[in-house]
Amino acid sequence: MSPRTLKLTITYDGTRLVGWQRQAEGTSVQGLLEEALARLEGAPVTVHGAGRTDAGVHAFGQVASAQLTCEHPPDVLRRALNAALPRDVRVVDACDAEPAFHARFSARAKTYRYVLRNGEILSPFEHRYVWHVAEPLDFEAMQAAARTLIGTHDFAAFRSAGSTSTTTVRTIMRSEMSSQAGSAFVVPSGDLGDVQGEGVGDPTLLVYEVCGSGFLRHMVRAIMGTLVDIGRGRHPAGWMAELLEDGRRSDAGATAPARGLFLVRVDYH
Amino acid sequence: MSPRTLKLTITYDGTRLVGWQRQAEGTSVQGLLEEALARLEGAPVTVHGAGRTDAGVHAFGQVASAQLTCEHPPDVLRRALNAALPRDVRVVDACDAEPAFHARFSARAKTYRYVLRNGEILSPFEHRYVWHVAEPLDFEAMQAAARTLIGTHDFAAFRSAGSTSTTTVRTIMRSEMSSQAGSAFVVPSGDLGDVQGEGVGDPTLLVYEVCGSGFLRHMVRAIMGTLVDIGRGRHPAGWMAELLEDGRRSDAGATAPARGLFLVRVDYH
Repeated sequence: MSPRTLKLTITYDGTRLVGWQRQAEGTSVQGLLEEALARLEGAPVTVHGAGRTDAGVHAFGQVASAQLTCEHPPDVLRRALNAALPRDVRVVDACDAEPAFHARFSARAKTYRYVLRNGEILSPFEHRYVWHVAEPLDFEAMQAAARTLIGTHDFAAFRSAGSTSTTTVRTIMRSEMSSQAGSAFVVPSGDLGDVQGEGVGDPTLLVYEVCGSGFLRHMVRAIMGTLVDIGRGRHPAGWMAELLEDGRRSDAGATAPARGLFLVRVDYH
Repeated sequence: MSPRTLKLTITYDGTRLVGWQRQAEGTSVQGLLEEALARLEGAPVTVHGAGRTDAGVHAFGQVASAQLTCEHPPDVLRRALNAALPRDVRVVDACDAEPAFHARFSARAKTYRYVLRNGEILSPFEHRYVWHVAEPLDFEAMQAAARTLIGTHDFAAFRSAGSTSTTTVRTIMRSEMSSQAGSAFVVPSGDLGDVQGEGVGDPTLLVYEVCGSGFLRHMVRAIMGTLVDIGRGRHPAGWMAELLEDGRRSDAGATAPARGLFLVRVDYH
């Protein structure tokens, strides 16, 4: 019997996970899905993910593909997987795809979001999901620097030491900083502003969103570390363009913490 | 030296806590605050809380009072407390109060919120903060039943077995169900609707908010359990009024899980 190709859309809270990829130790999203699918299939199953998110990175719309012979309808598979998976990983959609579909190689674009809390006090409801920076940041400089990334550039300054990619040229379609008052945890409209006094300033969420054809390992977090260096005034906004011109990894900002990063969605043709 | 009376406003994620009150085992908000204040004071300090939230219950605006002799300005105390406290407990405001101020006895009203996720799939970002009910609920019936609680009533049907209050009469100023699409975790606008297919229905957040002069132990959770029984069609909306007339605890709905409950704010004269 020729196998079917299943496409899964998955959301996860990466806090206690070792990341997408199976590791010798710890719980990975790939490992959890492969074990749950193997029980349904009665045989080992290999699951490919669109983005190999690191330990602590979250996902709203990670996409995975797998080849199976079992004949359950996709929504039955979705429910069976959710019954088997821990609460921090959920399959939000399952459907049959073209035989040649591969979550990683068929991907046309990926969107990541990085969330930063700028203010004195970090809400207990946010600490797993944001990078907390207490000192004031120059939002306009960060916004200008973010926009210079749009286009096709050599991102060698933003590749991690262990990266094995053959080329460091990538195309970025969108790269945008936005800012909003209030809480990341909106229901039950938990704005600290409702209950706190004047002394603690005006906390702001800074959200960086980037959509590109592909990303080097740690690239979004290295960009975010660089944007925060610019926000802190250590470098001008134009530093970003210089790093794209002829930067090495040691020139750019430090890698931002994993917990503020979300894989939002993956687009296909 | 005559002591000062300090008023603290506190937010906490109750997931790993045994509740507000000190217990023989486990971490309590009262215990954490008393230990941190004792280090600043150089002597034992007693902290009184406005609402003695149970294990797993969260707070945005819990209020506490304590008498101290140490002379640090309130914002210095706030920063010192936050440096000493774990990340799931934050002091969002500190100020000096009238000598007679007592967080519990001076309180005029408290507002609680209960959050319920109604839909097939529970987001990994919500599971600590909502009650998940997959089956459809009759929102209009729940809304009508919630409104019948407004006024002064005998809440004997909603008192916990271990309650020691001398009277079960309480006054409710507001009691309202509301409904909204989308996620409790709004940044980075993590709506599962953005990434999921048609199969999983239309998930909704149901939010119950109640403001009253005082509450019996487990009262809000017993009300919520009763509202969900009405939403499931096990009883008509008018059942709530009957329970107020002559109900015993065994007549009303089961106590809803702690994790969906938030102490939102405490009001004083």
